[in-house]
Amino acid sequence: MSSVFGTLFRISTFGESHGAGVGVIVDGCPPSIPLTQSDLQYELDRRRPGQSKIVTPRKEADTAEILSGIIQQAGQTVTTGTPIAVLVRNEDQRSSAYTEMEQAYRPSHADYTYDAKYGLRAVAGGGRASARETIGRVAAGAIAQKVIRARLPQYQCVAYVRTVKDLRAELAEPVQDLAALAETVEGNIVRCCDPAAAEQMVELITQMRTEGNSVGGTIECIVRGVPPGLGEPVFDKLEADLAKAMLSLPATKGFEIGSGFSGTQLTGLEHNDEFYMQGSTVRTRTNRSGGIQGGISNGEPIFFRVAFKPTATVLREQNTVSKDGQDTTLSARGRHDPCVLPRAVPMVEAMVHLVVVDHLLRHHAQTGK
Amino acid sequence: MSSVFGTLFRISTFGESHGAGVGVIVDGCPPSIPLTQSDLQYELDRRRPGQSKIVTPRKEADTAEILSGIIQQAGQTVTTGTPIAVLVRNEDQRSSAYTEMEQAYRPSHADYTYDAKYGLRAVAGGGRASARETIGRVAAGAIAQKVIRARLPQYQCVAYVRTVKDLRAELAEPVQDLAALAETVEGNIVRCCDPAAAEQMVELITQMRTEGNSVGGTIECIVRGVPPGLGEPVFDKLEADLAKAMLSLPATKGFEIGSGFSGTQLTGLEHNDEFYMQGSTVRTRTNRSGGIQGGISNGEPIFFRVAFKPTATVLREQNTVSKDGQDTTLSARGRHDPCVLPRAVPMVEAMVHLVVVDHLLRHHAQTGK
Amino acid sequence: MSSVFGTLFRISTFGESHGAGVGVIVDGCPPSIPLTQSDLQYELDRRRPGQSKIVTPRKEADTAEILSGIIQQAGQTVTTGTPIAVLVRNEDQRSSAYTEMEQAYRPSHADYTYDAKYGLRAVAGGGRASARETIGRVAAGAIAQKVIRARLPQYQCVAYVRTVKDLRAELAEPVQDLAALAETVEGNIVRCCDPAAAEQMVELITQMRTEGNSVGGTIECIVRGVPPGLGEPVFDKLEADLAKAMLSLPATKGFEIGSGFSGTQLTGLEHNDEFYMQGSTVRTRTNRSGGIQGGISNGEPIFFRVAFKPTATVLREQNTVSKDGQDTTLSARGRHDPCVLPRAVPMVEAMVHLVVVDHLLRHHAQTGK
Amino acid sequence: MSSVFGTLFRISTFGESHGAGVGVIVDGCPPSIPLTQSDLQYELDRRRPGQSKIVTPRKEADTAEILSGIIQQAGQTVTTGTPIAVLVRNEDQRSSAYTEMEQAYRPSHADYTYDAKYGLRAVAGGGRASARETIGRVAAGAIAQKVIRARLPQYQCVAYVRTVKDLRAELAEPVQDLAALAETVEGNIVRCCDPAAAEQMVELITQMRTEGNSVGGTIECIVRGVPPGLGEPVFDKLEADLAKAMLSLPATKGFEIGSGFSGTQLTGLEHNDEFYMQGSTVRTRTNRSGGIQGGISNGEPIFFRVAFKPTATVLREQNTVSKDGQDTTLSARGRHDPCVLPRAVPMVEAMVHLVVVDHLLRHHAQTGK
Repeated sequence: MSSVFGTLFRISTFGESHGAGVGVIVDGCPPSIPLTQSDLQYELDRRRPGQSKIVTPRKEADTAEILSGIIQQAGQTVTTGTPIAVLVRNEDQRSSAYTEMEQAYRPSHADYTYDAKYGLRAVAGGGRASARETIGRVAAGAIAQKVIRARLPQYQCVAYVRTVKDLRAELAEPVQDLAALAETVEGNIVRCCDPAAAEQMVELITQMRTEGNSVGGTIECIVRGVPPGLGEPVFDKLEADLAKAMLSLPATKGFEIGSGFSGTQLTGLEHNDEFYMQGSTVRTRTNRSGGIQGGISNGEPIFFRVAFKPTATVLREQNTVSKDGQDTTLSARGRHDPCVLPRAVPMVEAMVHLVVVDHLLRHHAQTGK
Repeated sequence: MSSVFGTLFRISTFGESHGAGVGVIVDGCPPSIPLTQSDLQYELDRRRPGQSKIVTPRKEADTAEILSGIIQQAGQTVTTGTPIAVLVRNEDQRSSAYTEMEQAYRPSHADYTYDAKYGLRAVAGGGRASARETIGRVAAGAIAQKVIRARLPQYQCVAYVRTVKDLRAELAEPVQDLAALAETVEGNIVRCCDPAAAEQMVELITQMRTEGNSVGGTIECIVRGVPPGLGEPVFDKLEADLAKAMLSLPATKGFEIGSGFSGTQLTGLEHNDEFYMQGSTVRTRTNRSGGIQGGISNGEPIFFRVAFKPTATVLREQNTVSKDGQDTTLSARGRHDPCVLPRAVPMVEAMVHLVVVDHLLRHHAQTGK
Repeated sequence: MSSVFGTLFRISTFGESHGAGVGVIVDGCPPSIPLTQSDLQYELDRRRPGQSKIVTPRKEADTAEILSGIIQQAGQTVTTGTPIAVLVRNEDQRSSAYTEMEQAYRPSHADYTYDAKYGLRAVAGGGRASARETIGRVAAGAIAQKVIRARLPQYQCVAYVRTVKDLRAELAEPVQDLAALAETVEGNIVRCCDPAAAEQMVELITQMRTEGNSVGGTIECIVRGVPPGLGEPVFDKLEADLAKAMLSLPATKGFEIGSGFSGTQLTGLEHNDEFYMQGSTVRTRTNRSGGIQGGISNGEPIFFRVAFKPTATVLREQNTVSKDGQDTTLSARGRHDPCVLPRAVPMVEAMVHLVVVDHLLRHHAQTGK
Repeated sequence: MSSVFGTLFRISTFGESHGAGVGVIVDGCPPSIPLTQSDLQYELDRRRPGQSKIVTPRKEADTAEILSGIIQQAGQTVTTGTPIAVLVRNEDQRSSAYTEMEQAYRPSHADYTYDAKYGLRAVAGGGRASARETIGRVAAGAIAQKVIRARLPQYQCVAYVRTVKDLRAELAEPVQDLAALAETVEGNIVRCCDPAAAEQMVELITQMRTEGNSVGGTIECIVRGVPPGLGEPVFDKLEADLAKAMLSLPATKGFEIGSGFSGTQLTGLEHNDEFYMQGSTVRTRTNRSGGIQGGISNGEPIFFRVAFKPTATVLREQNTVSKDGQDTTLSARGRHDPCVLPRAVPMVEAMVHLVVVDHLLRHHAQTGK
């Protein structure tokens, strides 16, 4: 029951590397939203392997097929309001690469915990812990984004790599032009907000790959065009749902919104965001709240950061234990991402879309408009 | 629908400062768990106002009444398996303290966003954004803890204040004796893991109160006795549910587990937790994973940190806007916590109990044992 | 987790006869809905014991207290959009009446099954199987009705007793004036649609009470003013949710909508409801569908029937078994309803309100209006 | 969000006639349950079109593909504990048969209500109201049945046609040998419990087809091997979940359990099921409760009846209205089931499996065993 996300815009993902395919069902998508296969494919291409020299060379086209929930209407493909099922077939499986893992647990992977939980596991590709599971999320996120834009045309969401290990990108803050930022981000293979830093990051990642090692970093995300009033008090606070969404992504270790951990260094007087009127709009002079107060959006940009650990797969010998309880060593082979961040950027955005669309639908339910 | 938390051990909190009372319904608590009013009261006393000189002097005994779901059985009060409702009456309401707030939005509070969402709000006490809402959580957490201990006698969960503003407590890590740590924490009014640092923190908080200002900080939490196999792949990862739980607490801005944000500074080879056998138990030499791998507990201690911003209520004049859209100023009066952390410690623990018990029940559902 | 009902307008009931009180939390109620204690009390008075000579003489005023979720606004009490908690204290407990039941299972009661499920049970009053549990539903239903009427002013829902044992009330169908019908129903203590039949029913019920026996019957319900388009395809069909709602009421054994079981006697050509235009409104000439087609309302009156078994409590000796597995006999004492139907009428209506309001909110979520 | 069923064993169905395929995701299936494609195919073959002369001649093999959630283990295919996705491709689509329906609403179909709800609809094949939607349910039900049998080896569930229009099958009650009954049922194309009556039913159905007309009837179902203690008090009563499950099936109009509507003719003394000891087992002499008391199974056979209306598709001219609000007539063409009951039998069983497995998993969660 853990593969379901959302209350009103509810998605169920399925699939793992070793099976026939992966995908998602989206239940609760409103009708008459224009949606084509290429809307999905655009985002899937941003997360697919083999897209650049710094990601895994695994070759999979990840072509999405929409199985249900759309219809031709007046020359356009639109949603029907019924479940949208999306399927991506698995293609490039090399089970032989996983032979060693059958017996020995890869350090900092989910091998041991899956065995502990289920008593068995899909060794090849890591089962549901495989990054392929995120294909369903990214496809669903693309659909969510279409729904949001249909109701909130000003909506923008841009994620980007801010740090890789100790390399930190520059960014003129607060960001003025999100569209321009998005272009910059897609303009380099790291998906970094700073092309100069991106070059250094490429170099570092390439070096890590050569050494069979890996690195992590942080992704930041800015969301605009969310009107005041989305989010719920108490448990389903907008930031709480975002935190859950981000920590549900593979390899994440931390989440902070607005001033985050560094905000604990300020006093209340320094930290508070004073209100002022900008015409008829209530604005804040600073945005340490990160666009959310009391769990509810205040109309300011929402921004947050996510920490991604270095990829657990390293192509070097490590100490570990075998399935039958013996100390042993393991040298992983195969293809891996020396740094997950470039491909994680569209995943972060997808999860934001999924959180926002759900709260948007809840808002309509509550207000009746 | 946002006041419900949990899938199998499901709680619904209710109430706000201005009404008759606050509380919670716990649905899904197993039967025959010994439970008395004093189990709840012990935890509620740890979060109640007026407990020390560094928290709000608001006077409320916060006496819990268990309305349902328990029964006398063989001289003991035990749960019946049916919903447990807990009520705490409100006592010390001073609506007059809130007169100014009716017209002007307090900076970095939920006043404006509640108005934006609902079109009206309970001005007095902040409605559901009031810290009083957490009474229901703490009561439910106390019940959850009883259930966990009945099934996992080794279970221990200790939260403590690690930093207040720039003051950082010392702690010999890894912690060996959690019971001793718990005693240390309850031995000072900050609930800090380091008595010496606690004294400095008391001084700083007292100074902040005098100045009508406030501070924040970080709370850490260590959880032991969770067996390998709790948690779910994909969305309901144990760390994702913890992140949501923590970010749903008032004034939180960040969450990190295990190596967290600083783990991004390491390479994969440095970061990975190698496995080894300790007798027949699978252990890890380091614990950068924070006790969770792939969303599932691995038997190592679970530990995480939560960032709390400085209290938004400061007793100084601030710029803001009025409800009818005019720039204005506001000087809050009344009683407030110059630092929420001492009272937040039992809230953090309560949310951990609620997350763990839910995954424990799910585990039983899946394994049938 | 079984005490929660609804997806968006979500209620959690609590309480049993032997404890301090019973009640409900309503989560997801929209803001600014006028709501007073007397709105609730009116419906609670319709279900309370002691209201007439044919129901249990148990004396309980069942006075509701609203603990949260309302506020004074412009001289009116309105909902705040946050959880509404309602508490009714228990008053008239006579545990002594239950002494025998501690050891022997009452036939066709939930005594044995509760023991089988929980391993213990609240003997006095039947625990959650007590009719007192429905207090929370009726209170929540009253709130739901206020929400529906605020958005659908034409909404009407009238339930009434159609049969008691073999006594069948006359009713000119299709019913033209629902308000008049409601008045007729409240005009007799059976809550029957036919005053003449009601007299006979009173006689039969009185005789049953005298004999320590009991009777059942059927309740019908007509709902108008539900616009076309409410309900969902597949699992959450409007009739499926109504069926669940009704079968969740104590003592119910059957549900049928529209033509129901007798509709199986017709051919398709006889059974189909032909469409026609009434001005600009799509209507059907017959209404064998009962106002719902494919799970979704079509704008015609919704009507259905519910079967209630004869009350299980009879004041005569019956064979049964003891808790420790011995054949024995049991003679119930105490006060009981010789026929539950008069008090079940407001319960049926409450459950309809709860189903309709949930689908209404879902509809707003989906359409954004 | 209406295509999700179940709390712990949660299924999401998708697909409609006009799209690429239909299917289901099962989330929450325990690991290590043996499961093959043929387990699913056996049940799908029982519901597929073209299986006999009395059902629609639509030609679809309905071959299921399991996309995820299984693994080879020790020479056996078993579940992994992760989501099981099942896909059945659509094959025999004749959109031309639906041309008329684009403009005119078929009486007693969901055409009008889908338009009212969504503003558009998949005309061809009825969209989600198509009987093809039930493929996902039947596949999921087959999986559920495997899980139940792994934990409750005595579990048996047999549904059968009891009436078609005014033809009523004979059955020696109470049924002694369920396996023999199942064989009888599968031995005739009506899936009737009485071969002699089945012949008459075939004749009637054939005549109806010839006339372009249709008939309905009732299906009964007997479930054995459910131990005492499954089901929940209050809303998720076992009978309430069964009622919802049955009324969610296409063409259903009524549900009754145990004594049902006819039980209202008895007095309490006549209706009550007296307990007695059979060895160490608590039994009831009669079973008017239908195996469930207070929402919880008592160990006796569970039995219930479901009313199915005559198929709405009739090949004769009927009055109706057009999409643009004009009175018109419509003569359906195409292939249809003159009686849905033979193919509905496996659907009823599938829904029982889904309800039982969910309560079984809940039971494990609560008891921890």
